[in-house]
Amino acid sequence: MSQKSNMIRVAIIGASGYTGAESMKIILRHGEARLTYLTAIPAECGAVEDVFPQFRGRCDLQIEPLDLEKLAELADVALCCLPHKVSMEFVPRLLGAGLKVIDFSADYRLKDVSVYEKFYAVKHTDTANLARAAFGLPELFRDQVQGADLVANPGCFPTGAILAIAPLLAEGLIELDSIIVNSVTGASGAGKNPSAKFHFPNMNENLFAYGIGTHRHMPEMEQIAGELAGSEVRILFQPHVGPFDRGILSTVYSEPKQNVSDDRLLRLYEDFYGGEPFVQVRKDSPGVKDVVGTNYCHVFPAIVKGRIVSFSAIDNLVKGASGQAIQNMNVLFGLKENLGLQ
Amino acid sequence: MSQKSNMIRVAIIGASGYTGAESMKIILRHGEARLTYLTAIPAECGAVEDVFPQFRGRCDLQIEPLDLEKLAELADVALCCLPHKVSMEFVPRLLGAGLKVIDFSADYRLKDVSVYEKFYAVKHTDTANLARAAFGLPELFRDQVQGADLVANPGCFPTGAILAIAPLLAEGLIELDSIIVNSVTGASGAGKNPSAKFHFPNMNENLFAYGIGTHRHMPEMEQIAGELAGSEVRILFQPHVGPFDRGILSTVYSEPKQNVSDDRLLRLYEDFYGGEPFVQVRKDSPGVKDVVGTNYCHVFPAIVKGRIVSFSAIDNLVKGASGQAIQNMNVLFGLKENLGLQ
Amino acid sequence: MSQKSNMIRVAIIGASGYTGAESMKIILRHGEARLTYLTAIPAECGAVEDVFPQFRGRCDLQIEPLDLEKLAELADVALCCLPHKVSMEFVPRLLGAGLKVIDFSADYRLKDVSVYEKFYAVKHTDTANLARAAFGLPELFRDQVQGADLVANPGCFPTGAILAIAPLLAEGLIELDSIIVNSVTGASGAGKNPSAKFHFPNMNENLFAYGIGTHRHMPEMEQIAGELAGSEVRILFQPHVGPFDRGILSTVYSEPKQNVSDDRLLRLYEDFYGGEPFVQVRKDSPGVKDVVGTNYCHVFPAIVKGRIVSFSAIDNLVKGASGQAIQNMNVLFGLKENLGLQ
Amino acid sequence: MSQKSNMIRVAIIGASGYTGAESMKIILRHGEARLTYLTAIPAECGAVEDVFPQFRGRCDLQIEPLDLEKLAELADVALCCLPHKVSMEFVPRLLGAGLKVIDFSADYRLKDVSVYEKFYAVKHTDTANLARAAFGLPELFRDQVQGADLVANPGCFPTGAILAIAPLLAEGLIELDSIIVNSVTGASGAGKNPSAKFHFPNMNENLFAYGIGTHRHMPEMEQIAGELAGSEVRILFQPHVGPFDRGILSTVYSEPKQNVSDDRLLRLYEDFYGGEPFVQVRKDSPGVKDVVGTNYCHVFPAIVKGRIVSFSAIDNLVKGASGQAIQNMNVLFGLKENLGLQ
Repeated sequence: MSQKSNMIRVAIIGASGYTGAESMKIILRHGEARLTYLTAIPAECGAVEDVFPQFRGRCDLQIEPLDLEKLAELADVALCCLPHKVSMEFVPRLLGAGLKVIDFSADYRLKDVSVYEKFYAVKHTDTANLARAAFGLPELFRDQVQGADLVANPGCFPTGAILAIAPLLAEGLIELDSIIVNSVTGASGAGKNPSAKFHFPNMNENLFAYGIGTHRHMPEMEQIAGELAGSEVRILFQPHVGPFDRGILSTVYSEPKQNVSDDRLLRLYEDFYGGEPFVQVRKDSPGVKDVVGTNYCHVFPAIVKGRIVSFSAIDNLVKGASGQAIQNMNVLFGLKENLGLQ
Repeated sequence: MSQKSNMIRVAIIGASGYTGAESMKIILRHGEARLTYLTAIPAECGAVEDVFPQFRGRCDLQIEPLDLEKLAELADVALCCLPHKVSMEFVPRLLGAGLKVIDFSADYRLKDVSVYEKFYAVKHTDTANLARAAFGLPELFRDQVQGADLVANPGCFPTGAILAIAPLLAEGLIELDSIIVNSVTGASGAGKNPSAKFHFPNMNENLFAYGIGTHRHMPEMEQIAGELAGSEVRILFQPHVGPFDRGILSTVYSEPKQNVSDDRLLRLYEDFYGGEPFVQVRKDSPGVKDVVGTNYCHVFPAIVKGRIVSFSAIDNLVKGASGQAIQNMNVLFGLKENLGLQ
Repeated sequence: MSQKSNMIRVAIIGASGYTGAESMKIILRHGEARLTYLTAIPAECGAVEDVFPQFRGRCDLQIEPLDLEKLAELADVALCCLPHKVSMEFVPRLLGAGLKVIDFSADYRLKDVSVYEKFYAVKHTDTANLARAAFGLPELFRDQVQGADLVANPGCFPTGAILAIAPLLAEGLIELDSIIVNSVTGASGAGKNPSAKFHFPNMNENLFAYGIGTHRHMPEMEQIAGELAGSEVRILFQPHVGPFDRGILSTVYSEPKQNVSDDRLLRLYEDFYGGEPFVQVRKDSPGVKDVVGTNYCHVFPAIVKGRIVSFSAIDNLVKGASGQAIQNMNVLFGLKENLGLQ
Repeated sequence: MSQKSNMIRVAIIGASGYTGAESMKIILRHGEARLTYLTAIPAECGAVEDVFPQFRGRCDLQIEPLDLEKLAELADVALCCLPHKVSMEFVPRLLGAGLKVIDFSADYRLKDVSVYEKFYAVKHTDTANLARAAFGLPELFRDQVQGADLVANPGCFPTGAILAIAPLLAEGLIELDSIIVNSVTGASGAGKNPSAKFHFPNMNENLFAYGIGTHRHMPEMEQIAGELAGSEVRILFQPHVGPFDRGILSTVYSEPKQNVSDDRLLRLYEDFYGGEPFVQVRKDSPGVKDVVGTNYCHVFPAIVKGRIVSFSAIDNLVKGASGQAIQNMNVLFGLKENLGLQ
């Protein structure tokens, strides 16, 4: 596509990981945004095509160490793909350089600093920006995102789990102390660094639980759920990882306060997500392959033995990370929300 | 191994499917049992090596249409790998031919005929044998199995799920109306017949739920759980299938009646399964790859936010089918229980 | 993207298979083309989102039985994704309806009717159109494609294999009677219909050869190679299929007529493919994952023990089918060649 | 199985890797051999069940640092699973301790020390034992193995490739300067240490070539082929790795000296391998899944366009490593050759 002069200029901070690459892929076909600046730690710098062979002939930028002046000059918005804890060191500088920032880390998601500090075991050093960051789940908080200059892009598990039950929470239909979120993610969720668990001969043909009682996405889910319900919510979240690259299937168990029919449930979901481009209410159970490579979330609620079982499927790297970030970017800049994401 | 004259002679009825093949594999290295007679429907008969190339040079039997006289003459025990509903037509004849029978179908598992008839949508035609069949989960019902001449080999999901929580049920530690069993099975669970869902380009890189509210293993779980608890148990069972050949990981959520510590929980499991060769209590969460190809079940209980989360991993074709059948056979014939299963 | 009135209107004939779906996916983000008409056999018709859940919310067309008048009215170009033999019944009518046609089948690829009739065991019924069809491998025959109204979209294996060795053939560098093409394709190459070989529990963790001495892409390779070399070429082609969805890795063995250095070889490839957007000459061996989901072909030639070993990787459904078709469409309509393919 | 007093006592040196684990698995069901001593480098020692959870309840040994006195006292034979170069430091000591040794490394395979030193880039320090080591491919060199006290267990690729063409070489049927071996291995071939290439999100859904012109199994193939042919043989060997755990499919291309029919070819193979328990001549092309988990090699030769294409499938960890080692052990000790391997 021809690169028009009024295109949004996008920098990716921390471009050498999986979410950086996925963001690049989306921006390359966006139409109204273009990549202008890519950064990483020195050990992971170099021509994009050397870091990611899949970009040979598609992107001739260099991944460089971050230079704030260059950034200020070259970009309108930064997709900040740095890890937790590192992000809050850099975000104030990115904002200071005059950019809008969409941050992929957890550093600006948890409004209660003490919860953050407990789960991430580190002091929060940028509480001022934390206070004003928008939570970038546009389907639920689009108003916050419009007008923000800092967006906390949600975690992958919370995105899927919350979209699975948001209508129930918003309608006050379920008990708030007995929600169970059982999720299975593809292995790309573990990131780019090799390890014994994700060594192919171990991960292939395998499936296991992890983060038992300790996963950091649990308080994030509880916070968003609480905002939707207008009251404290208690969630038991149990993640698992399976032998596939991408996708998260969440199976969420909840107790309705009173009897509800399958039909009413379906209608509730359809009404709640009616105008949303990226949330599709299914009439059957979705598979992760129905959404892999897309920014879509497929949801399906059912009544089983008096409980509600809500399913959702997303691509952890798209709706669970880079796609949602660019959806947020589109909202921030007043563009059509599905640009680059069709 | 040399074939001693006093070896148990094993027939496999319905030898052309996955559980038939797995049973053959185990008997071939058993040491005190040998294959003598293999049957299938005519369309699936032929030399074993033509039906299953992996047996070339390992087994030179023919798979033949069932002939009851030949069976009576050639075998001491029948592993009956027929599908539900077909099994109860044949089992009486197998017993009539003087053999001990280990039946892989659901036909002799559900003691309440009305539950069977509801979930399998067919009239039960062999209630006399149903009444006296032993439920072949040796870890829980070894006494029944010893001395039986008909053993109902348990379903794969019930085996994994019940072993995950049997100590809790037997000790009366948990509420009986809020148990949730969330399981993920490998695709061999779907059997040998090609279908759109299990076509490689659909199943690969995919994961989805099925049998929502309707899976036939749900009443089976409730029956066994009820026997252990001495009271009616209500289980919400949700199966999923993932992109791997073998294995079931079950994640079982339950509510303790009163506070219990991780340590006490672990000790309870260790005491309960102390002498069992095939149930291993782990100190961490098991992966399906830890048990694939074996008859072992790895379990691990944990306390999360006041609930108990119990994990179990089995190979659906071994401990969930053929391995457990041969474990039952070993019990029936007074052999060492792990023969062929080490 | 907003749908401009001057967009190319695209019909997909045979939209219910894998190449139909992949074509839809690409057109949906093309920017200067849009889907207007989708057809299939009656048994596979219905809302796109019911046939392919991944298009829910992305495309609200119906897949309908073909109506030639409607087609003529609604579309400028037809991507004809019908199977071999069926295609030549329909292509004359599509052309007759005034459309440009890009045909995915083999029916218009083999210029020698007797070779076609031998390998496809059927009489060719549309030799007039066969004679004037362009062979749609733009990197080699772009001139033919521009100006054509019927394009024969190449086979997936020939695309990868020929791009791996085209510089050698065009330069006359290798012996023409001893070329060996060894390829491994992902399982999507087998199409959408379930079968025993591609049943997940059989195909997963498996790899096998097929089409030994009989694969229909062999004469297609020989024809194109012959055109490049200006002389008859003899190719031994051996395909294999492995446990992955997409991608073909071809390893092509050939004998240089005289000594050639690695450096000269690399320069030859770089010169030959210098301006091509979709062929990337690597300095190391490509993996299929470097190209999956893209229209790129990565090639790498090396000298081993006096032979030339040329590697190429493509996505069988993109550069090997739908992507190349849309690349051809872009050429036909004078658009930027990578529209929809970035 | 009861452990008889006259069982062969087996030590595994370097028990913490994949071939160590596979060897343990086989010995555990051997019947006439038992594990008595397991060693590894200190960082990888510990209870077997902690190093390999799949052995919980199946083996209660400790993996310990090597103590030669203890070894001499406890074991009759050592399976030496150390890496290349390390092995030749330890093998003389193992022999000195009075054990028979089956060595998995390349250190005793290449009879020409200069070839070894070139390909392994290290000086050979144990040429005396090298000279007398038997090459442990029993189907071809059973006489050597009987009576040996040191067996060099062959490489995985040479095992598959040579068994695919041994009848052709022994009969003098093919040209010796134009053999091409194209192989695809599963990822367990890369061993246990995590790396970027074998990180699940990279290796999954991927397939690539490696070791182009440099793979160390190439001279090993040439040496064995040369012995069979009685003359120097030149082999171009190109390995690839695909997204599956186990198995090697080798596709070997050769030129017959004169015309030969498919039938004669098949008969030649059947005669050559007639009595061999572990080599099965197929009438169709084998898949790796036909042999995975077994010590079998399936071969199939075909004529294609005047060339011979020979296929073989083995499990790289069984017939390509641990299974063949135990087959060798059975030969060394005069046992039935398939003990533990049925």
